[in-house]
Amino acid sequence: MARHIFRCPLRWADMDAFGHVNNVVFLRYLEEARIDFMFRLPSAGDGSASFSGGSVVARHEIDYLRPLVHRHEPVTVETWVADITAASMTVRYEVKDEATLYARASTVVVPYNLAKQRPRRITAEEKAFLEKYRDDGAVTV
Amino acid sequence: MARHIFRCPLRWADMDAFGHVNNVVFLRYLEEARIDFMFRLPSAGDGSASFSGGSVVARHEIDYLRPLVHRHEPVTVETWVADITAASMTVRYEVKDEATLYARASTVVVPYNLAKQRPRRITAEEKAFLEKYRDDGAVTV
Amino acid sequence: MARHIFRCPLRWADMDAFGHVNNVVFLRYLEEARIDFMFRLPSAGDGSASFSGGSVVARHEIDYLRPLVHRHEPVTVETWVADITAASMTVRYEVKDEATLYARASTVVVPYNLAKQRPRRITAEEKAFLEKYRDDGAVTV
Amino acid sequence: MARHIFRCPLRWADMDAFGHVNNVVFLRYLEEARIDFMFRLPSAGDGSASFSGGSVVARHEIDYLRPLVHRHEPVTVETWVADITAASMTVRYEVKDEATLYARASTVVVPYNLAKQRPRRITAEEKAFLEKYRDDGAVTV
Repeated sequence: MARHIFRCPLRWADMDAFGHVNNVVFLRYLEEARIDFMFRLPSAGDGSASFSGGSVVARHEIDYLRPLVHRHEPVTVETWVADITAASMTVRYEVKDEATLYARASTVVVPYNLAKQRPRRITAEEKAFLEKYRDDGAVTV
Repeated sequence: MARHIFRCPLRWADMDAFGHVNNVVFLRYLEEARIDFMFRLPSAGDGSASFSGGSVVARHEIDYLRPLVHRHEPVTVETWVADITAASMTVRYEVKDEATLYARASTVVVPYNLAKQRPRRITAEEKAFLEKYRDDGAVTV
Repeated sequence: MARHIFRCPLRWADMDAFGHVNNVVFLRYLEEARIDFMFRLPSAGDGSASFSGGSVVARHEIDYLRPLVHRHEPVTVETWVADITAASMTVRYEVKDEATLYARASTVVVPYNLAKQRPRRITAEEKAFLEKYRDDGAVTV
Repeated sequence: MARHIFRCPLRWADMDAFGHVNNVVFLRYLEEARIDFMFRLPSAGDGSASFSGGSVVARHEIDYLRPLVHRHEPVTVETWVADITAASMTVRYEVKDEATLYARASTVVVPYNLAKQRPRRITAEEKAFLEKYRDDGAVTV
């Protein structure tokens, strides 16, 4: 039932000519949160090579709720697992800080065998890891 | 019933460490197509300042169908209008070339009054322009 | 004689198809270090609006010494002031960690009056701030 | 004595919060010009695999002369070869259009053997190609 918290640093150049963090850059923040969640976290645990063979993004959905302006403090990306199938998982996120919810998003991720260049099934070990961050009660985007 | 065709040039650095155009960069291609459609096209026509007061992205959806690798030829982004309400429009896209459909996507765009920092209604002139690119029969993403 | 230390977080997508942080992205790291040095630091001090009116980059030089690969720990950008004239300053950097020097660089920055759209002179207050980070003995790039 | 002409398309998001093409993005334009010059051009000729084994950037210098704002027309990057040694070449560029010179730059490029992960010498075939674009009389940056 836990959610993964990633403190995502902004870069000044994330802003576009309107002086806001560009909408495309939010997807970069989600990527950073996903990499922290899927690559750093499992490997920091028991040394398993979870997802290290690669994974691909099959789908994104994102709703922009409030404009975000560059500041020196990171923004929080809260991540959890909404669905797990045999060969894919759906990750949900909220981009926010204490006072404001900037965006809600979800991504369908497919584990991928880079050597064979094709999708692969989720392993039992990966599933056990993902279950710890499962949260079905989340408001969907 | 027309669709807007934008020939989007790739950059070598659009590829990530997996040697494919990164999934986030596809949203950048959509942005380029949208700017060509919403800013260059109307202003090249009758000189009207359609959308020039600004617009914001309220939502994206994107499905990735095939990996895209850098090449010197542009990729085609086909754009059309799927829905128009009083204060928003839904734009749909296909990222493709003759042989391959790489991604399908849609974006909800809200016209924005930059000076007043708030959403505004679509004008009659803008609506007339958008109607020319309306295509409801499209398979939705 | 102090040097400014900025711990610059990497992003996974900073790597290009060769699996290294792309050479252009190093300039982004320098920008982040410069913004931390020129904007966050002075304003965190005595509340002066040093450089807040804007500044422009007139020149970069950068030497790449070692390839850098994405990791979860930030890279250090050490920054100091090598030269100050009436209307420009030269900032020098080393991008490194404990074991490795990845790049040496320098940037000529010109304070800029955004409202009047023209360069302006360095104020006495800005000069006093910069002098604290002056280090002429540095090996030049 | 020829110079290589690359018509570099801009992207709207190349602009930063000051409403100008960000200084770092100019290096991206140089990369695009270099890839067009070093990879597309030789391979379009006699099918030789010039530089295809990879190359790394050892140094950049760039002087910014005029601000550049997004427009739908490409900017011209003129590229030529200023120096060739046994294991490196210096490429010079001007970023400009008919009316304006925006930047002058130069890059030291080192051919690289990706398989062996080390620099390699320039081949006779590559040297013959480069000599066609040699121009020593250029004003240096």
